[in-house]
Amino acid sequence: MPSRPRVVIIGAGFGGLHAAKRLAHAPVDVLLIDRNNYHTFQPLLYQVATAALDSGDIAYQVRGIFRRQANFRFRQGDVVGFHPAAKEVELRGGERVGYDYLVVAAGAVYHDFGTPGVRENAFVLKSLEKAETLRSHVLGRFEAAAADPRSVERGALTVVVVGAGPTGVEMAGALVELFDRVLGADYPELDLRMARVVVVEAGTGVLPTFSGSSQRYAERVLRRRGVDLRLGSTVAEVRAEAVVLRSGEVIPTQTVVWAAGVRAHPIGEVVAESLGEALQRGWRLTVEPDLSLPGHPELFAVGDVAGAEGPDGRLLPQVAQVAIQGGKHVARAVVRRLQGLPSEPFRYHDLGSMAIIGRNAGVAELSPALLGLKLRGFLGWLGWLFLHLVYLPGFRNRFSALFSWAYEYLTYDRHARLILTQRPDTWEAEPAPSTLSDVTPDRETLDQVLT
Amino acid sequence: MPSRPRVVIIGAGFGGLHAAKRLAHAPVDVLLIDRNNYHTFQPLLYQVATAALDSGDIAYQVRGIFRRQANFRFRQGDVVGFHPAAKEVELRGGERVGYDYLVVAAGAVYHDFGTPGVRENAFVLKSLEKAETLRSHVLGRFEAAAADPRSVERGALTVVVVGAGPTGVEMAGALVELFDRVLGADYPELDLRMARVVVVEAGTGVLPTFSGSSQRYAERVLRRRGVDLRLGSTVAEVRAEAVVLRSGEVIPTQTVVWAAGVRAHPIGEVVAESLGEALQRGWRLTVEPDLSLPGHPELFAVGDVAGAEGPDGRLLPQVAQVAIQGGKHVARAVVRRLQGLPSEPFRYHDLGSMAIIGRNAGVAELSPALLGLKLRGFLGWLGWLFLHLVYLPGFRNRFSALFSWAYEYLTYDRHARLILTQRPDTWEAEPAPSTLSDVTPDRETLDQVLT
Repeated sequence: MPSRPRVVIIGAGFGGLHAAKRLAHAPVDVLLIDRNNYHTFQPLLYQVATAALDSGDIAYQVRGIFRRQANFRFRQGDVVGFHPAAKEVELRGGERVGYDYLVVAAGAVYHDFGTPGVRENAFVLKSLEKAETLRSHVLGRFEAAAADPRSVERGALTVVVVGAGPTGVEMAGALVELFDRVLGADYPELDLRMARVVVVEAGTGVLPTFSGSSQRYAERVLRRRGVDLRLGSTVAEVRAEAVVLRSGEVIPTQTVVWAAGVRAHPIGEVVAESLGEALQRGWRLTVEPDLSLPGHPELFAVGDVAGAEGPDGRLLPQVAQVAIQGGKHVARAVVRRLQGLPSEPFRYHDLGSMAIIGRNAGVAELSPALLGLKLRGFLGWLGWLFLHLVYLPGFRNRFSALFSWAYEYLTYDRHARLILTQRPDTWEAEPAPSTLSDVTPDRETLDQVLT
Repeated sequence: MPSRPRVVIIGAGFGGLHAAKRLAHAPVDVLLIDRNNYHTFQPLLYQVATAALDSGDIAYQVRGIFRRQANFRFRQGDVVGFHPAAKEVELRGGERVGYDYLVVAAGAVYHDFGTPGVRENAFVLKSLEKAETLRSHVLGRFEAAAADPRSVERGALTVVVVGAGPTGVEMAGALVELFDRVLGADYPELDLRMARVVVVEAGTGVLPTFSGSSQRYAERVLRRRGVDLRLGSTVAEVRAEAVVLRSGEVIPTQTVVWAAGVRAHPIGEVVAESLGEALQRGWRLTVEPDLSLPGHPELFAVGDVAGAEGPDGRLLPQVAQVAIQGGKHVARAVVRRLQGLPSEPFRYHDLGSMAIIGRNAGVAELSPALLGLKLRGFLGWLGWLFLHLVYLPGFRNRFSALFSWAYEYLTYDRHARLILTQRPDTWEAEPAPSTLSDVTPDRETLDQVLT
């Protein structure tokens, strides 16, 4: 086989996955690099964190997705360096991988905006492991409260969610349902009125990208279901057992979920520095209209890491659809380059926005191209379910998620409420003594929360 | 409500679960204590380790099982001490819990028989976390081999299973299937003929408790499917990257699964010492015919931790059925004591034994009461499936497992092949540099294997 140009894609998120798929029949070799061996369906991470779905339902092994794509290879690894002159990326450990075309699709990471204590004491919803850790932690706090009711006053049953974008709203909605309908039955010894979900949002409304009427609907539903919604409120500090608001108020809590904002993945900075380019707002890579990097037709950026602008001159939102469409566009752009054709600008087709607040309650605002429909309540919830099933990769995951949702809808049960820990519990020796952390996972975020 | 006698049960395995259930309508308060908040269906741990099932399929949250049982309470904790004079057990952390009746149902732990390096370098299949860690490790070795083919010579693709009882046989059978039919398609860049499963067994045959014809059938199937079966062979040492046999042979391997034998949980020793009693073989508690401890009609032991004897004077096997029947018996015994009735001896009804070797291949030897049927091959496999579905707790888990099995049977797929790690990957800072362990979970067993 003659040597074909190699397209290296960094990241197996929505952008990277769709770019690689769209290159299936192109005369190139595709190498996808990700630190995980699976694609994470990030929009449903909050369901893993609230015990509604198993990890396996929202993750799909990358090699499995591309089994039948002959020009595809996968490499598990972290890209930590970039050498544009040699056309190589560098993996952790020092190995270099050459490319002819490079697609940076590394996504976003959480950003603490300099707020003290966030990194040490807060949970985030960006990876499967973190979602599992958060689930184990929340359930562990309930076990701790059952063992020692005094811990309730120290915030064992209080969860503070910072940020009321879609992630914060979905997380808060799922948590109150978990508390009311599931854990209420699990813990007859606890007064579940003591279990609280507080949402702290700096802005004046929830779901800031939605219309005013959708915002008010979401607020009403959240409040009616028992969420303590603090609008126009800012977090000054996250401590091990409290959140301090800028107003001076101290909310005792042992669980803080940071959903207050993301920034582009740091690999973007590495790339920009190597090229001598400046970054866009949000640390995103500056891109040409065709998503290539300025002066480098062989380099592309898509999704959360790309600073692409819409027709209004504003940066495109960091959502799945932008990444999916961008990935497909870049695949086409590579093929056009190989054919010697001029590049086309990337045009984002906004299909609309959706968020779910909980059982039977969603909001969906479709784009004018989709008749500008606004769905709310049960219909919004159904629309959300349908869309997520369509985009979840793999028949097996779709079926499993649908079954879990149907089962939980009918039974008010959440099957996945396991506290998973890592302890040397299977040999004859007893593990080393410890105290409170015994009923909680001994993972790094958690250790910091408890010590 | 007048104070009712409290029955404390240590362990939410088969014995503890069935004892607690059977006490649902007894005039007692039941307190079940376990270090995990869920019941682990141990017979299927090897399926989690080989990516066939999700953790959520074989685990069931204890509070969920007993939601409708009014006299039931759960406590997550480790029992580490025993104070018979005060009628109290001591939890890690120092808290003491009083009992009127105590049921020790703590199960078994793996035993290394003094073999050097086993604890540091081998995996065991006794807990959900260990099964997940093993799965991540095996898949991580394949990723490492894909990144650096030289690691194959250092045993990256070789798994050595020590012990050819049901656990070892089932694990080996599932591994060769995973290698041949699943990972072969996942890793086109690897020569999967290099992937080996070696079973080391000290005895002269596999499945020692089965009949000679079943043993020979199992051996034949394992060998035909590619397992390298070493009978009459003993492990002298487990090293980080090799197993040393007593013959002097060194097998390079980065994955050793220790399935060579169990002993009773160490809490049995604590109890025996406090009572001044000697332990039975296998560190099991000496019990009266009614499963109470000698001289202590308020103390019981069931399942793997109990040294109950069959009519032939031999200790009963450490299998699920003995624990289930023992748990039910002890519940009846407590009720009879409360009614002032004399105790009845425990009679174990052996229903037979089953083991699965892989797809379409199982052996089942039913007891004379069940016509002494011997099933083999497809029928043995079907019988095994049916029995495990019946005993798996909860409709949801049964359905989910059945669906996964049917799907995987038809597609040769294993959906749960995720490498789950714990890394600080969601904040803007990059994690600290590391090397080989990057593509593997950084959990304790593993760290030791790799360093």
